[in-house]
Amino acid sequence: MAYNQGMYYGVHGKFTATPGNGPALLDILLRAAEGLRANPDCLLYLVSRDPADADAVWVSEVWTNAAAHQGSLDDEAARALIAEARPLIAGMSDRVELQTMGGKGL
Amino acid sequence: MAYNQGMYYGVHGKFTATPGNGPALLDILLRAAEGLRANPDCLLYLVSRDPADADAVWVSEVWTNAAAHQGSLDDEAARALIAEARPLIAGMSDRVELQTMGGKGL
Repeated sequence: MAYNQGMYYGVHGKFTATPGNGPALLDILLRAAEGLRANPDCLLYLVSRDPADADAVWVSEVWTNAAAHQGSLDDEAARALIAEARPLIAGMSDRVELQTMGGKGL
Repeated sequence: MAYNQGMYYGVHGKFTATPGNGPALLDILLRAAEGLRANPDCLLYLVSRDPADADAVWVSEVWTNAAAHQGSLDDEAARALIAEARPLIAGMSDRVELQTMGGKGL
């Protein structure tokens, strides 16, 4: 995408899978990211492994605004993925909500 | 950018400015991001405000590999910006190094 500057809604946080389920949770979240390609309010949805913890998956999101992010969770495909992911999730932590001001890659 | 999937080097963390200097530090980091536009190994460099702390600035980076990230810090323009930023930085925290596997926006 072109270089941009503005004020967007960012959210970054860590999911911890139940033991051994990090790769399965990672796969679900990558599918969630793919499903968001068609959503113009979702500017970024990155899924990362944590080299220090095989059961941890980090997600970094940037949206045009917080309401669009919240609304996306009600989408039918998103709800199906959330239902699939929930039994694999032991916890969530390190969540920060940010005002993303710009940079390279937005 | 097009949708991509692979394994990249991600780093995410918080800079805390000396009191009142959050906006000045944010400006320097946005200029750093602009300077990285020409670096093909830098896939993402986002600068965010923290709504909970006016002196905090978060940076989220994705690089093709860790060595490219490390090498970028030796660039002359980067060194000048680091020198400008250093007196404004009270601390760094919440740093995580990640293996970014894909998603939307890479």
